[in-house]
Amino acid sequence: MATVNENYLKLKAGYLFPEIARRVNAFAAANPKAPIIKLGIGDVTEPLPEACRRAMIQAVEEMGDRNTFKGYGPEQGYGWLREKIAHHDFQARGCDIEPDEIFISDGSKCDTGNILDIFGKNNKIAVTDPVYPVYVDTNVMAGHTGEANDQGEYGGLVYLPISADNHFTAQIPSEAVDLIYLCFPNNPTGATATKEHLAAWVNYARSHNAIIFFDAAYEAFITDASLPHSIYEIEGARDCAIEFRSFSKNAGFTGTRCAFTVVPKTLTAQASDGSKVELWKLWNRRQSTKFNGVSYIVQRGAEAVYSDAGQEQIKALVSFYLENARIIREQLTAAGIQVYGGVNAPYVWVKTPDNLSSWDFFDKLLQTCHVVGTPGSGFGAAGEGYFRISAFNSRANVEEAMKRITGQFTVGNRE
Amino acid sequence: MATVNENYLKLKAGYLFPEIARRVNAFAAANPKAPIIKLGIGDVTEPLPEACRRAMIQAVEEMGDRNTFKGYGPEQGYGWLREKIAHHDFQARGCDIEPDEIFISDGSKCDTGNILDIFGKNNKIAVTDPVYPVYVDTNVMAGHTGEANDQGEYGGLVYLPISADNHFTAQIPSEAVDLIYLCFPNNPTGATATKEHLAAWVNYARSHNAIIFFDAAYEAFITDASLPHSIYEIEGARDCAIEFRSFSKNAGFTGTRCAFTVVPKTLTAQASDGSKVELWKLWNRRQSTKFNGVSYIVQRGAEAVYSDAGQEQIKALVSFYLENARIIREQLTAAGIQVYGGVNAPYVWVKTPDNLSSWDFFDKLLQTCHVVGTPGSGFGAAGEGYFRISAFNSRANVEEAMKRITGQFTVGNRE
Repeated sequence: MATVNENYLKLKAGYLFPEIARRVNAFAAANPKAPIIKLGIGDVTEPLPEACRRAMIQAVEEMGDRNTFKGYGPEQGYGWLREKIAHHDFQARGCDIEPDEIFISDGSKCDTGNILDIFGKNNKIAVTDPVYPVYVDTNVMAGHTGEANDQGEYGGLVYLPISADNHFTAQIPSEAVDLIYLCFPNNPTGATATKEHLAAWVNYARSHNAIIFFDAAYEAFITDASLPHSIYEIEGARDCAIEFRSFSKNAGFTGTRCAFTVVPKTLTAQASDGSKVELWKLWNRRQSTKFNGVSYIVQRGAEAVYSDAGQEQIKALVSFYLENARIIREQLTAAGIQVYGGVNAPYVWVKTPDNLSSWDFFDKLLQTCHVVGTPGSGFGAAGEGYFRISAFNSRANVEEAMKRITGQFTVGNRE
Repeated sequence: MATVNENYLKLKAGYLFPEIARRVNAFAAANPKAPIIKLGIGDVTEPLPEACRRAMIQAVEEMGDRNTFKGYGPEQGYGWLREKIAHHDFQARGCDIEPDEIFISDGSKCDTGNILDIFGKNNKIAVTDPVYPVYVDTNVMAGHTGEANDQGEYGGLVYLPISADNHFTAQIPSEAVDLIYLCFPNNPTGATATKEHLAAWVNYARSHNAIIFFDAAYEAFITDASLPHSIYEIEGARDCAIEFRSFSKNAGFTGTRCAFTVVPKTLTAQASDGSKVELWKLWNRRQSTKFNGVSYIVQRGAEAVYSDAGQEQIKALVSFYLENARIIREQLTAAGIQVYGGVNAPYVWVKTPDNLSSWDFFDKLLQTCHVVGTPGSGFGAAGEGYFRISAFNSRANVEEAMKRITGQFTVGNRE
């Protein structure tokens, strides 16, 4: 008699983005002529950088000659890619990270879920609220939580609110926690963490022998030179932090798929006999056994991000989306709507007008403006009353969406 | 105090293939001029089919235009690929499988490991012996086993020997098991399963409410028209089997990365309250939450496998490797070595001569012939005294390797 993992039955109906897709599809089916603009899911829209495309075409061609054909690559990724990442993303910023501490993968979403494989069942888990839903749902699946309450909060998790009240910082808990998810620049709020804030977390983690999962998927959008791009810019982070990075948002790889995870060799966690176990060895074993590496073709595309042409092209992409974010911020502000984020991040975090709930604002925006955003409550209870607008779209779509929203919501125009 | 998943500490040192790589690298470093021929890891060597390359280059070019650019795709894979698979690989063979029962992934290795996520902790697990090590190691990692004994057998697993004694069939156990891994054509023995044999397993699984994990990664190598390519050719299999397939071996995608898993919607397993839970829903949720789909470019490459040109090109590839297998079988047989498999599979399963242990034969072959194979004992205790030789190499390398081995091992020439 085969049995199921019953933890899955605790999951609230539908992961956030499929639920949004369901509502949008239903609306589109009922209103086939409505010109819907999607500023919901954080998906890029602009072409893949030419440097990446050139490199991938060359890689495909290499696959056509048995002398340059590539079969299985290293599960951890090719050395030439790991070296470029270590140099450009870490050593050049003063972070002491070696190539073999970098594990290439097909996505940060996968890695932030899979990382739990190597940890014990009794760790106390802390997440921010609002939070990227994958962190929570993968803990539910792994049996690290109890049931959800009406606000969607799961028993057993420690929620760290980040809101306007605390200037969108993740407050250090008074109780002891073991695994902490931090994402800066933050999805969904667009907030950032200063070096001082991260240093406080590193100090906390080291004194509690806790591990920080640092999601830096949006680091390319940092415009403020004083802000850290990597947690390894903080002294001591090598002893307490795993960092997740992605080519999805800086180089437009959401459909091409490449990311990486940094597991320093100095990182340990405890076994029940009190001994310290190197996490690098466990993750290396996990990846060797449960993963077969990223497509050679895609890894060559990612490598090209670090060429001179690639660097220039991704800078242009990031600037383009940040200009969209500026337009969103300024237009909504002019309409009397309170906004946060969008300066060092591609997300603008909107206080819903007229005290609408997040999903009511979602439905209203979809029905009256044909604009799709993401309800803040989908990211956690403390996201209720907020709404995420993504800067990932064409300039024309962003301008058109802002025109529709400001027309509808500017004080005085409101119903 | 963060703790580790201690189940990882039960794993025997080194997954089989990394251990082989370590010994080969050490030998190569000590003997830089030795012309090593690798017939060890089951990795393809011939160029990727032209149809796949053309399709991927076109897909890369689409990524350069915002009108055809692709961001996040469906986590389950694109409909156009799922439809072609359902039609060609299943419906055309009389299997009642729908496109939305097919989940595209980046590898069968990943899927055969990840599938355990959706099952409970107390299932009784059966594996064949010898076996593809990933099935065992992922169960160890998930905490489904006890410690390993000296033969590398883990407590709590049910091992089903497949050997010359039982004509390389997986004997149905007398006890009740819940999850059963079957791989036919078999890795590593090259053995096959008849329809009658699979029907007996389907009957067993249905009467015990067990689930069969059927790994059909090598189905393209079947030359005997009477043998089933899919377990869904057996009546009732929709109610008890998940099938794993891959483009790695038929189309040479080991470095390109694409595979798929079939989870019929009629498949259920039990919750503790006795209710039946649809496994499709759980797997769909798992993939939506912990995976972000396969690269658009790669999926277009996989789709091209089903074009007329693609079908012709993969047939030629498979024939090429099967001819290698024939040469290996015949040469070794002529040298007085007992061989199995290699007719409907790219693997020849060799009885080690002179009663050498598997690893002793490995070392001897490496040192005297500079040929790399895979020790049978690396696949399980019942593989001791056997050795896997892969047909994945160039014709010239296969012929040269056979020349060296027969020169060394032909009765009369032996030391």
